[in-house]
Amino acid sequence: MQKEEIQQIIDLKTKPLGALGLLEKIALKIGLVQQNLHLELKNPHLIVFAGDHGIAQSGVSAYPAEVTPQMVFNFLQNGAAINVFCNQNEIELSIVDAGVNYDFEDYSKLKNCKVAKSTKNFIHEPAMSLDQLNLSFDYAKKTVDEIAKNGTNIIGFGEMGIGNTSSAAMIIHYLTDLPLTQCVGRGTGLNDEQLQNKINILSQTKNKHGKITDAKQVLATFGGFEVTQMTGAMLAAYEHNMLLMIDGYIASAAILVASKLKPEILNNAIFCHQSDEIGHQYLLNYFEEEPILKINLRVGEGTGCALAYPIIKSAVNFYNDMASFESSGVSNKD
Amino acid sequence: MQKEEIQQIIDLKTKPLGALGLLEKIALKIGLVQQNLHLELKNPHLIVFAGDHGIAQSGVSAYPAEVTPQMVFNFLQNGAAINVFCNQNEIELSIVDAGVNYDFEDYSKLKNCKVAKSTKNFIHEPAMSLDQLNLSFDYAKKTVDEIAKNGTNIIGFGEMGIGNTSSAAMIIHYLTDLPLTQCVGRGTGLNDEQLQNKINILSQTKNKHGKITDAKQVLATFGGFEVTQMTGAMLAAYEHNMLLMIDGYIASAAILVASKLKPEILNNAIFCHQSDEIGHQYLLNYFEEEPILKINLRVGEGTGCALAYPIIKSAVNFYNDMASFESSGVSNKD
Repeated sequence: MQKEEIQQIIDLKTKPLGALGLLEKIALKIGLVQQNLHLELKNPHLIVFAGDHGIAQSGVSAYPAEVTPQMVFNFLQNGAAINVFCNQNEIELSIVDAGVNYDFEDYSKLKNCKVAKSTKNFIHEPAMSLDQLNLSFDYAKKTVDEIAKNGTNIIGFGEMGIGNTSSAAMIIHYLTDLPLTQCVGRGTGLNDEQLQNKINILSQTKNKHGKITDAKQVLATFGGFEVTQMTGAMLAAYEHNMLLMIDGYIASAAILVASKLKPEILNNAIFCHQSDEIGHQYLLNYFEEEPILKINLRVGEGTGCALAYPIIKSAVNFYNDMASFESSGVSNKD
Repeated sequence: MQKEEIQQIIDLKTKPLGALGLLEKIALKIGLVQQNLHLELKNPHLIVFAGDHGIAQSGVSAYPAEVTPQMVFNFLQNGAAINVFCNQNEIELSIVDAGVNYDFEDYSKLKNCKVAKSTKNFIHEPAMSLDQLNLSFDYAKKTVDEIAKNGTNIIGFGEMGIGNTSSAAMIIHYLTDLPLTQCVGRGTGLNDEQLQNKINILSQTKNKHGKITDAKQVLATFGGFEVTQMTGAMLAAYEHNMLLMIDGYIASAAILVASKLKPEILNNAIFCHQSDEIGHQYLLNYFEEEPILKINLRVGEGTGCALAYPIIKSAVNFYNDMASFESSGVSNKD
């Protein structure tokens, strides 16, 4: 189906032209991906990737690195925000240890994709080797291929990793034209002084590493294992023609890298939430995308995806179920 | 429960302080209304009020007045946007004939609250008499009292009435300081010339009627029967201590009138959607409220309420179900 054909179906629904706003754009996007008169969201799934960051040792976060494994336990015990929202909206949730600095004894509910216990501190050296990056992509592909077996055609991505807004800031700065100061935000809640310190540290880091243009190289230098597996998972999910629900700042850094490797991936991406992080608005403009929610979330975990999912479902439902002017006998605009 | 007590429950959930953004403000609001450690949304209900406007004869809308009854049939046949979204989110839907210019034969699925077949054209004379306004309030109270018997504690309000953005513009202009030109928008899709015509007509109307300050008088002069019954329904729902889901521009005009008669009603109001109508942003600022959704809807029908409902539910669910730092063993910020 061509764009025009899908748009006409949307335009003939009993509503003023364009009056369902962003829902219409989402329906069009899904129609183009699914190429079917009837749209469908099947077995929605959300993966939360967790990983620790060497940079967390440099005082860039309001929370100590220990919070990463603690939050993994919280996910496994159903106590975190993402659990609540996935339960509510019937989204299956997988938790992945992509590289947490903790020896988990029980991997029955947690997926063991641990590349190492933490990335290296990218102030001093690249966060990971290219081998580790490739291993991350392999793990991610395996995780997504497994999920695809259940027929899932829409997938969201979340993350947990103390320090990862620094990682995202560097990736976004290197792969777009956005000045570093505009990429660096307050993360989970830095005050003015702490924010200035974060900016200083990341500026020095930039001077140390100099120019890098290759997307994989940028990811290896500044990525966390959770950001890297998320990128790999997006690429793998695209191969299955899934719809990709993109959360906030970290997930947008991941899709940015993925889009450098596979530009068409953006056709399948639905931007769920505009983060409070200062650079996120810029990045959404860069992608020419409007987010579904702007409600000042800064939790991560994929919460924006889980919260936006019912709205995506509404886009599908109006497309499938609303009457047309013709079928209902309602007069259209002259 | 005091505000501080509820806020502390929110602050001790396992997330960065304030990181659930608007959801936290909604949970606080609901906590203050419900005064309970466990929040609950019971039997959500949405009423769509339909009514015809005398002003529609003056060319202020992109659609002919016949669309009002046609859309009522569409609601009854489950074909409109609001049907789809209420079905999806399990919101009970009632359709009220508040004053449609059509002789419906079958009132089994439609509530007959018809005050007259249309308001008068307020270019020439007040849209309705004070008796008609009072009858509208009586009808609305009866409708809401009936719904309250099912235990409903959250209610949304929608409208259908060709010409009603003109009605809302006049009400908002008279009851706030917003200049008329900033109250008048494109409604369901006027072009530049048609918009200018609408502004001219409403400016002349203002000159004719002169200064009116009493809220009920403003409503009688410019209201539609659907806007008036919506106002009455909000007041009645507040008496039952329901949460009020406020949709776009028309519903915001109704809550504006209601708040002039009962200022505390705003404590129970949850603003669901920022309409594309130019004056709505101003009005939300006037109320000091942030809307849940900003996705360029301009359908009316209460669609913003139905779409935002899952997000409101998420606010309740995180409050009830998320682990606290203490219960989960997650480290809080220093």
